[in-house]
Amino acid sequence: MHINDLDTPTLIADLDVLERNISGMANHCSEIGIPLRAHTKTHKVPEIAKLQVDAGSQGITCQKLGEAEVMVDAGIDDILIPYNIVGKHKLQRLTDLVKRAKIIVALDSEETAKGISHQATADGCVIPVIVELDTGSRRCGVGSPQDAHRLAQKVVEMQGVDFQGVMTYPSNVNAKPFISETVDLFRKDGIPVNIISGGGTGSEAASKEIGCTETRSGSYVYEGMTRIGNSEMLSHERCVLRVLVTVVSTPTPDRIIIDGGQKTFASYPPTPYGHIIEHPDAKIYGMSVEHGHVDVSECSHRFRVGERLSVIPLHQGMTSNLHDELVGVRGHTVETKWQIAGRGKVK
Amino acid sequence: MHINDLDTPTLIADLDVLERNISGMANHCSEIGIPLRAHTKTHKVPEIAKLQVDAGSQGITCQKLGEAEVMVDAGIDDILIPYNIVGKHKLQRLTDLVKRAKIIVALDSEETAKGISHQATADGCVIPVIVELDTGSRRCGVGSPQDAHRLAQKVVEMQGVDFQGVMTYPSNVNAKPFISETVDLFRKDGIPVNIISGGGTGSEAASKEIGCTETRSGSYVYEGMTRIGNSEMLSHERCVLRVLVTVVSTPTPDRIIIDGGQKTFASYPPTPYGHIIEHPDAKIYGMSVEHGHVDVSECSHRFRVGERLSVIPLHQGMTSNLHDELVGVRGHTVETKWQIAGRGKVK
Repeated sequence: MHINDLDTPTLIADLDVLERNISGMANHCSEIGIPLRAHTKTHKVPEIAKLQVDAGSQGITCQKLGEAEVMVDAGIDDILIPYNIVGKHKLQRLTDLVKRAKIIVALDSEETAKGISHQATADGCVIPVIVELDTGSRRCGVGSPQDAHRLAQKVVEMQGVDFQGVMTYPSNVNAKPFISETVDLFRKDGIPVNIISGGGTGSEAASKEIGCTETRSGSYVYEGMTRIGNSEMLSHERCVLRVLVTVVSTPTPDRIIIDGGQKTFASYPPTPYGHIIEHPDAKIYGMSVEHGHVDVSECSHRFRVGERLSVIPLHQGMTSNLHDELVGVRGHTVETKWQIAGRGKVK
Repeated sequence: MHINDLDTPTLIADLDVLERNISGMANHCSEIGIPLRAHTKTHKVPEIAKLQVDAGSQGITCQKLGEAEVMVDAGIDDILIPYNIVGKHKLQRLTDLVKRAKIIVALDSEETAKGISHQATADGCVIPVIVELDTGSRRCGVGSPQDAHRLAQKVVEMQGVDFQGVMTYPSNVNAKPFISETVDLFRKDGIPVNIISGGGTGSEAASKEIGCTETRSGSYVYEGMTRIGNSEMLSHERCVLRVLVTVVSTPTPDRIIIDGGQKTFASYPPTPYGHIIEHPDAKIYGMSVEHGHVDVSECSHRFRVGERLSVIPLHQGMTSNLHDELVGVRGHTVETKWQIAGRGKVK
């Protein structure tokens, strides 16, 4: 099928760029000497996770339990969930999942650890756990090596859990003293540190430098080796996703309207919300719910209703999260269609 | 089922408030003397559309063809699509749909009209159409009464279409001269003006004043009778939606982390992204993809991991668009579960 036979708006992935991004990161981590555990939150597509594993990713990372369930259903068998699993529903689902695959979970409190311990003990399984360190992100995580040590001392005594080490996000050279001190405290006390997990696309070398045993990178899969911060970095050589849209209105000489708005693109600032490959001078300056508003005053091209355009969205992972299906294309040929099976699995 | 038996994060609707908002708008339009054609883009739930029709809405509005298909599948038989239908796939779907229900479509160009005309003629059906006027929104729409007249003159001559009148958005008293002049031009020329459709929650009286035959209001269903502009207006008396969340981390005395972030809430600025009903002094100051970051420095309450909170999202319609299911509750009792069947139907 030719891409012109697709209805619009449709989310498409340039498979050549996807493969290049996946192998590029695998090679980068291999050269640095840090194992990669690809974070799949960006794409949520089991088939892409398998491409990452095939390229050398040692297991994957899922941000939510529901995403991990989708990946295990698809045959992935080694998953880190860097998220506090809390509440009776999730604890039951966690032990169900642990019986089907190797699942490691992070936690940052005694309450979370106790919940996992009790459920695992009741269900007759043992769950590998690591402690999350807050080395600067000010989100979850214990705030000091001493707090990490105190929590680890309690967790290693709990039944049903297998203490494995620590994690942080994002990896940053400033975190080195925090991690080193934590590891020293653990080792002096005989607490295992088999895993030191770092993360963040572009932070692979930092993960290695601060002593991590693995690095979790996610957004590289769509955005290339460094995070995209602004629309100037949206190039078709590094970005995988495009939204195929149709011009539905040409109301004035300087404005056209495309058939994708806030529910097709993750359209929070900064503008422009994406890069129109065919006409870089056309600027998406605004979006209503189902319309994209494009300033074409700098374009010599005369746009017509029915014309199709390819837009690289500024927020690739967040835009993907609005769609149910991803169409893989090579050149102008549709090669595959993937369900974004993890979309909406926020539980 | 008690709401405490729901896993989190879960999108819930307060059915008492929903019913009050629906009947309130129906009564408001009845008192003003303007027929309501409820816009369903806000909720995308067929069961809610039926409640709106049962309360007196004279048909509904769907922003995209895919949403209209969902509503027709559910038995709704009178739908306005205020959107240019362009391209071979959609034109075929449009004529398929026209054979199943009364579908009116808006257009703003000869190209769009021709496409509809050709497809309808080929498929042996006649499609009611109206012309979209740009009375100030600077999106789609013809820019002057003269342009509207010129386009209408062409459309009334086309086969397969049944010219019915005009639409605008949003209704505004400043649009009165534009609409009056357009109607005069049409009538002098014998062009039908059976429909003058206005729109926008809070613009019902303006629709009446500028001569509309119907008004399209949408966000009232979740947000009450006037649009919510900031978090100060988020009250549980007027807002239908809540996201039930769990506290998953209490890393410092002044910060807690909840299990919903950017993929659970539409989290573009302004902050705070929502109102925590149980603790109004707790402020959601930031969100990462799957975490909500809450400042609890002003709260005397000591939060614990596992505690559940109810958050009224600032952007109700956009938040709803991230979820597959809406749980209807009355008090603390789960009364129904609805699929958000129109979510993702951006084509």
